[in-house]
Formats: sequence, C-alpha cells, structure tokens
Amino acid sequence: MRAVDVIRKKRDGGKLTPEEIAFFVQGAVSGTGWMPYQVSALLMAIYFRGMDLEETACLTQAMAASGQRWDWSDLPGPVVDKHSTGGVGDKTSLILAPLAAACGVYVPMMSGRGLGHTGGTLDKLEAIPGFRVEWEPEQIRSILRDVGLIMMGPTAAMAPADRILYALRDVTATVESIPLITASILSKKIAEGIAALVLDVKCGRGAFMKHRPDAEALALSLQQVGTAAGLRLVTLLTAMDAPLGCCIGNALEVKEAIETLQGRGPEDITALSVRLAAHMVLLGGLADSLAQAEARVRQALQSGQGLERFRRCVMQQGGDPRVLDRPELLPQAPHVEAWRAPRAGYVAALHADRLGQASMLLGAGRARLEDTVDPAVGIVCRVRPGQKVSPGECLLEVHYRQDQSLKAALPLLEQAVILEDGPPAALPNEPLVLHTWGAGTA
Amino acid sequence: MRAVDVIRKKRDGGKLTPEEIAFFVQGAVSGTGWMPYQVSALLMAIYFRGMDLEETACLTQAMAASGQRWDWSDLPGPVVDKHSTGGVGDKTSLILAPLAAACGVYVPMMSGRGLGHTGGTLDKLEAIPGFRVEWEPEQIRSILRDVGLIMMGPTAAMAPADRILYALRDVTATVESIPLITASILSKKIAEGIAALVLDVKCGRGAFMKHRPDAEALALSLQQVGTAAGLRLVTLLTAMDAPLGCCIGNALEVKEAIETLQGRGPEDITALSVRLAAHMVLLGGLADSLAQAEARVRQALQSGQGLERFRRCVMQQGGDPRVLDRPELLPQAPHVEAWRAPRAGYVAALHADRLGQASMLLGAGRARLEDTVDPAVGIVCRVRPGQKVSPGECLLEVHYRQDQSLKAALPLLEQAVILEDGPPAALPNEPLVLHTWGAGTA
Repeated sequence: MRAVDVIRKKRDGGKLTPEEIAFFVQGAVSGTGWMPYQVSALLMAIYFRGMDLEETACLTQAMAASGQRWDWSDLPGPVVDKHSTGGVGDKTSLILAPLAAACGVYVPMMSGRGLGHTGGTLDKLEAIPGFRVEWEPEQIRSILRDVGLIMMGPTAAMAPADRILYALRDVTATVESIPLITASILSKKIAEGIAALVLDVKCGRGAFMKHRPDAEALALSLQQVGTAAGLRLVTLLTAMDAPLGCCIGNALEVKEAIETLQGRGPEDITALSVRLAAHMVLLGGLADSLAQAEARVRQALQSGQGLERFRRCVMQQGGDPRVLDRPELLPQAPHVEAWRAPRAGYVAALHADRLGQASMLLGAGRARLEDTVDPAVGIVCRVRPGQKVSPGECLLEVHYRQDQSLKAALPLLEQAVILEDGPPAALPNEPLVLHTWGAGTA
Repeated sequence: MRAVDVIRKKRDGGKLTPEEIAFFVQGAVSGTGWMPYQVSALLMAIYFRGMDLEETACLTQAMAASGQRWDWSDLPGPVVDKHSTGGVGDKTSLILAPLAAACGVYVPMMSGRGLGHTGGTLDKLEAIPGFRVEWEPEQIRSILRDVGLIMMGPTAAMAPADRILYALRDVTATVESIPLITASILSKKIAEGIAALVLDVKCGRGAFMKHRPDAEALALSLQQVGTAAGLRLVTLLTAMDAPLGCCIGNALEVKEAIETLQGRGPEDITALSVRLAAHMVLLGGLADSLAQAEARVRQALQSGQGLERFRRCVMQQGGDPRVLDRPELLPQAPHVEAWRAPRAGYVAALHADRLGQASMLLGAGRARLEDTVDPAVGIVCRVRPGQKVSPGECLLEVHYRQDQSLKAALPLLEQAVILEDGPPAALPNEPLVLHTWGAGTA
C-alpha cells in the first residue's frame, strides 16, 4: 500500500477501506509510509471530498486506538463525560460535572485550552490559585474514585494521532471538515474509556459553526459516528449568538460558576448546566426519564451537594478551596472600566463573537496556542438582551490590566452591544436548546 | 503573510495575488514561512479549485525566477525549443532538433527521463555509447553555438521551484492539475531563455491526457499562459492512441530516428517531425509561412543536412558517431521473440498504453524515478493499423533480456494488438495533428 494511492483515491472521491484508514493513521503517528506532506495532502482531499459514516467511524476508531485507552470497570458507577464545541462565556463544565457527580455519575472530564475568541475549561480552572490539571494515571484514578470527578488536560499517551493530525490541520487550513472534527472529538472520548457522552454542539455568531445547517450536520455526524463506535450518546444543538451568563474571562467565569452552584447564577447558565447534567445522569442509567434526571440534578443544586463536590474537586486538585466562599481571592484585574449606553434604547443583541474577541484582546484568551492567558481580565455584561437601558447606564464592565489592551478591545465592544429604539421582536439564544438527538430525549 | 491564510483562501475558491504566489514559491524553495506539508496542502487546494490565467502566469513566472535564466542574445540566430507532454515511441526530438538547427534555428533542448509507460529523450540519447547529457553552462554555450543544438538534462540551478514542487506533487497525487502542469512546463522553458516554443500536447490512450477535452484544456492553458509570459508559441494537439513509428525502447528508437534522418523512416514520425520543426523555423522568423518552412525542413531532411547535424551533435556530446552508419553498435538485447497473429484479420488498433507498459516491464522504462533503464530492450511493431495479417504472421518483435520480464510483458502484448475480421472503419492516430493553436498556423 502506498500513501500516494490512498491520497489519489480520496482525491477522486473514492471511499477508503478500513485498511487504508488504519495505514494512514498509523503512518501519521509513526512516519512509516507517510510523510507529513502526504498526511496534509490527504487531509485537504478529505476536506473537499468528505468521508461517509463508515469511513469517519473507522478513522475515529483508528485514532482512538493510536494510544492508551482508560478502563474504568472497577468503578461502582457509570462513567460519563460531556463535550462542547466551544462558546463564549460557557462555564457549564465547571457546574455540570460536580452536579452529575453528586448524582452518582463518574466524570473523567478531559478538556482543552482556549483559542481564538472562545475560552477553555483548563484556563478557567487554572485561575483558581494552585489548581492543577496535569496528573499521572494513578492519581487520576484515585481522584476520580474519591471525588466522582476530575477535570484534566489531555495526556500525551492518549490518542496521539489526534494531536499530530490536529497540529497539521491547524497550519494547513483543514480544520473545518466535519468528518475530521468528528473523529478528533470522538477519538479522545473513546480513549477516555467512557460508556456514555453528552455533546453540546454550539451554533451561532460566537460558535465555530455559525450557520445552523453546518452545526446540524456536525451534530448528526457526531451522534451517528459515536453510536457506531459503541458509545451511548445524546447530542444537543444549542444557541451561541450571545454569551452564556454574564461573565467572560477566566477568574470571572469561575466566580459565576460558583455563584451558579450556590443557586444564584444566571438563568441561562443554570438551565443549560442542569439540562446537560440531567442527560449525563439519564445516559448513566441513574434515572428513568429526563424529567426525573432533571429533578435529581436540581435537588443536587439546591441542596448544595454540587457545590460540595466542586469544593472537594478543587481541594483534591491542589486548588485553594477558600475561593468558593471568598471570590476576592481569585485573581483580580487592576482596572475596571464601565462601558456605558450612548443613548436610550433596548438591548437587541450582545454579539458573542465580538465580546469573545474583545476578551481575547484584553488577554483572557489566545490568538495562538503558545500565548499565555491573563486569568484576571475579561468582561462582565451588566445587561441582558431585551433589557431597556438609559443613556449613560453601564452596559459592560471591562476588567483590564493594560491601557493598550483596553484600547484594542473598545472598538469591538462598541459593535458588540446592539441597541434598538423599541423592544426587539426576537432575542438571541432563545430558545437555548435548539434540538436534541439521541436516547433519553423524552 | 501566513501560509495557512493563503491555503485557506485558495481552499475557499479565492484568487491568489501575485504577492501571495511569490511568497508561496519563494517559501517552497527556501522553507521560509512554508513547511512542505503546507506546500502540499496548497497544491491539493489548487488541484480542486484551479487557478485562472493570471494566477497561472504569475506562478509560472515566479517558478522561472526561482533560479538562473539563460541569455542567448549573443547567438546569431533565433533560439527556439520544442516540448512534448510525452507519448509512446515518440522520438521526434532526436529528429526535429537537428532538422531545425540545419535550417538556422538554435535549439537548447532540455529534456527529461522516462517515467511509467512513456519514454524520455535523455534515456534514448544515453543508449548511444558515450553520449553525455550533463554539461557545465560554458560547455552548453559552446556546443550550442557550434552545432546549433544541444540535447541536455535540466541543470540544478534552473527553476529549482519546479524540481521541488514536482517532487512533492509526485508523492501527494497532485500531478494532474492543469495550472500546475502548465507552470511546470513553461517555467523551465522560460528559464531556458528561449524566444519561441513549439508545444506538442499528446491526446489519447498512450498520453498523459487520455480525453480530448482535458488535452484541449491543457493545450489552451499552455498557449495562453506562455503568450502572457512573453513567449511566441504554437501548440499542437496530436493523437497518441497508437505508438509513433514502429520502435519502442531506447536503442531501438535511436535506430529509427537515424533511419528517419536518412529519409527512410515511418511516415507518421517523418511527418510529425517535419511539421514540428517547420513551426520552430517559422516562429524563429526564418520563413514566411508554414508551407515555406516545411519545404525548408524537407530540404534539410532530403539533403542529409539534418543527419549531419545529428552526427555533429553526437560527436560533440561524447557519443560514438559510428552508430549512424552501423546501428549494430547500439546496445542489442540478447533475445528476440516474435509475437504472432493467433488468427487472420485486420489490425484495428495498436494500443500505445499497453505497448508502453509492456516496454517498461521489459526494462526500457521506469516504474519509479530511481529505477535504471536497459537501453537494449523494447518492442518493434511489424504491422501498422489497418494492415491485413495472416495466422502466424509476426506482429511484434519483443527484444528482451530476461525470460521473467518477457513473461511479465506478454499479457499486455496480447491486449495491445486488436484484430478484427474486416478492415477497420477508423484508424488510430488519424489524423495525427488534431488541432493547432497560435501564430503561423496558416
């Protein structure tokens, strides 16, 4: 078998066999038979020609099999994870993982870092002084068994093919391919050794997929390929036109997540976290219906059990648990600037993409993977879409460190808040859950 | 400027600017800003999205400018070359270059080696004992001035971008792209410093372009881009369904070329060589019409001036000139096997692709660039399409070295000669010249 023949076959619209796909993935990892310039040529051919369900499932399995796979069969409960395609202000992971754990689900949550205008769970957690996201396999096993959840970064031994392919895709303009995205997401989750998975595919201005048909195609691909790979899974399509909650930026989002676990978070973040956690509980076999699962999750929220799980998670992962009671111990930006309404009106939109980009420019995110993030900076939205505002009223709080970064962010902020004279006919992010695929949606 | 952005632009169907194309070509040669896996990703994006005339002309010029460019302004006559896209049994270069030189054209012919089922002019020339195709720049200048022609391999300093890009295309299934083929061919010719060029685009079973619309598209692209680059040129579309002439294989083709220069070659080879040489003479400004140019070339053929030019070329390039009079001094295969007609009938077709592949399996060609060729082996067609044959009549002479290679070639030979009961309605390679683009076609 030769790499050039596999590339030509896909280039001409052919369907790759399991053997050809395994040859490709093994070659990409080991270099045997495949040079990086051949790997990237095939990735571009896949970008143009696509892969069918069977090919994508094959690619996913081959990538998952490229490294170590966890085995949690010794745990006394179901092992379920959640993955989101990334949004602005999305701190649901920090809330739903403790809630699901409090209901008896084991959550070995492997997350990523922020890139571009979207934040990453690992960056948010590291805003908590002392919090560590890198652990050895035996420590991971021990923390998960003890706390019911662990929030960690990817380990080098897990799905190395995804790491190698993603690095190539990032610099060869082959990221935006549904089969490649599907295989990238699911290969890591299969390697995690989970029994079930809840997927949150974001759709809208602030999402990777801006248009609903694209987002639906990705959601369906994930749902079908995941099912073919033997996972039980539910895929939600959720709106990402406005930020989730009020806070954007690492420490600010941790604070909002804690408030939500204390029962006083914004309505949208609370609702989405509860819904996603409930799907995890239902997929884990710990409830008979989504309604029953939601009731259990709400009970874990109201009773403070979720908050207590999060406290134990912070403690076990080396973080300072005092931040749960004293949020002022989280990193704070030296300056806060109010961005005020230039006139009276109604908030018709809060554009998630522009707010995310502004937050990145303030230092909360990365333009490139090698950039470092500032945990303290970010944006707090003081108004919600639909709200009536008066001239001079504070719309956004900008938490910043350097005048220069504030200056860079301001033009984006001006374009982020859309004021209209009358009450808007439709509000962004409503409804929040656009569609649900998979079992347990009743 | 970032490579990934250029790749994305082309991936999405955009038109690259001259700056982006120069950045790409310079990066591919120097490694600055472009890794090989980014170069191959862009090549695949170009495969799918194409390039317009302006982009292709830009790419061609940038590739030509990546190395040294000859200057022949000190020569007392026009400098014209010919390029063919490659066929089976095509030894016209060996014939037309001396003929054109005999008419006053200077021909600095840079040729390639055979690959796959098509032969290469350099391999054919090297069948002449002692013939050298690699020369230093000053030697090239001196031979060209003295003989009026030189037949040589590409020099390292000339269009290095083409060498680098072609090596990548070959292993990433991005060879079959009209803008990339156009830029590859013309960049080398522009670097040759010629004033005019005759292009022979082959079309048919034995050609790189099997279908007429593809071959026409390539011909038109070459004609337009070459003109845009300031070359005077003529592009012919010629049939390549049956081999040109009777002989396939390096020494066998040299023998047939010499016979043609002696005025006793096959009709098709003679006609095509004269036609192509006449276009060179006309483009060089040495005749007023194609008819006049053809008359001059025929005169050079009949008077033996062409043969004498070839003799001087062989002598000046280190070859043994005695082969012109004693062809038995050329390498000869130890065995000759007759392949005979299994029944009576008419020769409806001699499939060039199968004969070319069979010749390659005998050792006359290369499956891969690093293979070596056997100058002695090959095939002689004893019949021509349309001819009536009797059972047991010799159709093909197979000149071979090892029983094993004969065995490998036989199944292809059986499929190469198509016999029918009655005279065929149409013959392959008729007409030979399918179309001509460019000046001097009257």
